[in-house]
Amino acid sequence: MRLATMRNGTRDGALHVVTRDGARAASAEGVAPTLLAALEEWERVRPDLEGLAADLEAGRLAGVPFDEARALAPLPRTWQWLDASAFLNHGALLSRSLGIDPILSPVPLMYQGMSHEFLPPHEAATLWNPRGDLDFEGEFAVILRDTPAGIDPEAAREHIALVTFVNDWSQRAIVVEEMGRRFGFIEGKPATAMAPIAATPDELGDAWQDGRITASLTVGLNGERFGAVPAGEMDYDFGELIAYAARTRNLAAGTVIGSGTVSSTRYAETGSACIAERRGIEIIQTGTASTPYLRDGDRVTMRVEIDGDVVFGRLDQAVVAR
Amino acid sequence: MRLATMRNGTRDGALHVVTRDGARAASAEGVAPTLLAALEEWERVRPDLEGLAADLEAGRLAGVPFDEARALAPLPRTWQWLDASAFLNHGALLSRSLGIDPILSPVPLMYQGMSHEFLPPHEAATLWNPRGDLDFEGEFAVILRDTPAGIDPEAAREHIALVTFVNDWSQRAIVVEEMGRRFGFIEGKPATAMAPIAATPDELGDAWQDGRITASLTVGLNGERFGAVPAGEMDYDFGELIAYAARTRNLAAGTVIGSGTVSSTRYAETGSACIAERRGIEIIQTGTASTPYLRDGDRVTMRVEIDGDVVFGRLDQAVVAR
Repeated sequence: MRLATMRNGTRDGALHVVTRDGARAASAEGVAPTLLAALEEWERVRPDLEGLAADLEAGRLAGVPFDEARALAPLPRTWQWLDASAFLNHGALLSRSLGIDPILSPVPLMYQGMSHEFLPPHEAATLWNPRGDLDFEGEFAVILRDTPAGIDPEAAREHIALVTFVNDWSQRAIVVEEMGRRFGFIEGKPATAMAPIAATPDELGDAWQDGRITASLTVGLNGERFGAVPAGEMDYDFGELIAYAARTRNLAAGTVIGSGTVSSTRYAETGSACIAERRGIEIIQTGTASTPYLRDGDRVTMRVEIDGDVVFGRLDQAVVAR
Repeated sequence: MRLATMRNGTRDGALHVVTRDGARAASAEGVAPTLLAALEEWERVRPDLEGLAADLEAGRLAGVPFDEARALAPLPRTWQWLDASAFLNHGALLSRSLGIDPILSPVPLMYQGMSHEFLPPHEAATLWNPRGDLDFEGEFAVILRDTPAGIDPEAAREHIALVTFVNDWSQRAIVVEEMGRRFGFIEGKPATAMAPIAATPDELGDAWQDGRITASLTVGLNGERFGAVPAGEMDYDFGELIAYAARTRNLAAGTVIGSGTVSSTRYAETGSACIAERRGIEIIQTGTASTPYLRDGDRVTMRVEIDGDVVFGRLDQAVVAR
């Protein structure tokens, strides 16, 4: 089942089911007004949503044309966004890139980011600070139903309602300053953008394996491929990330858990899902970073394609000066 | 105007107005079902809430007895909780206490904490981890209406809808580990408790001065006074904290901004609003910390009293092992 949220003048938008080819959508208003409301009663609501999706898929329900460029984020706002750094290869390259000490940790690195606004998939991103070294970060993310504190990784996987991907916009220069202050990220992490579609894990087929995604995230910059990075090397699976997040807190329905930038040790072949990582590779290979951070007018695209199926739709964002 | 939220079986509870003597309350359901809903339309809704509060105060509305022990947090959940460390004296004592390097920062220290669950004022706090060194942190907090990114400190003060205080439960041993990882706090900061009443700044009278609170936060541990700490030494006022938080993000209505542990350089006289700070003082004075962190069964109370007026009601929480 694939879900999207369309504008309707409210802060949460209107929940829709979307066909697998991404051509048509139907309002799910009769089942749940918003995705957040659906997640709060996921077990009860899911069968009805799946029935609606099946009717739309089979043509028993006409629906309307689906235009992802007019979609909001599937979750325009939610209660909690916990973003991990679950690809240790990314962390290692980032340390080289930013000139900071590697962070050795017995647990997943994870910070809480702003969740009251996920940017629509085709909305421009504001270059908030010209000194900030704006970068994109292509990540997978899972969206949870209510998950109790103290859950173990295996049980945690069963609480994953939906999968999607995000672009976690980052102001690298500010992030480095914030890491020095050890309190996490506020200024360096403005609103994150979310792909137009969130899908149940079964929509990934064999690319969903025990809480990991093996598919590649393809990232473009100004029309050129920047990376097509397989996510199979994720060092913690989403069950482990959720269990860590839930050590001392319940996770409310609607909690989004991010993988951190998708990264591969075969980077020469795959490219990268953020600029900072490519700069780290350049430093390793040549001693100097040559790829610049984003500039006013740059255009960033992302998609996940599995056997021609663009499961989550496309992110397509221009960068604009504030 | 003073507001509280009573249990009604929903996640957000039912908004009520409360008399100044804390004896009676009246449902505000006819104006706004929840505090979060009220904050999203604050300018429109506030006059009606104030009319209701005036009717209750004058006895034109009978209301019901107000039992703060049955109240939820005024905001049982919200979109964003940004907790600063705005008392530099607290930071200095904490560094001594925890044996960590002082954090020198040109901006306020601030982290994003969990906002999907603020504990009721009289609900037990779970000692999540016996190795965690559980501590209380008495803090003032402000609750915002919608606040745009890029706002300046002076304008930011006008976006403060309500004031309250919180107990930011902290697992000190875990917090120290998390600071070493530089991503902020997840495991070390379980749910924060909120006083039973949130009040408009005018309820503080002269104790509200240009975005600072001069009143004292009184903290008790097992029936003994632990501290009665005046907040007038706050090194950043709430307008400055809000403006910092809003540098690269809009702040959604319902955003809560915390002061960090209230602290005074006259600590010999005032005591402290957290155990870690007292331990820091003990280290300075005797070389060794002697006050233990919290144990199963300990009881923590907090209140703010201005000329006999217990403005925000009382926090009264027992610590229970998980």
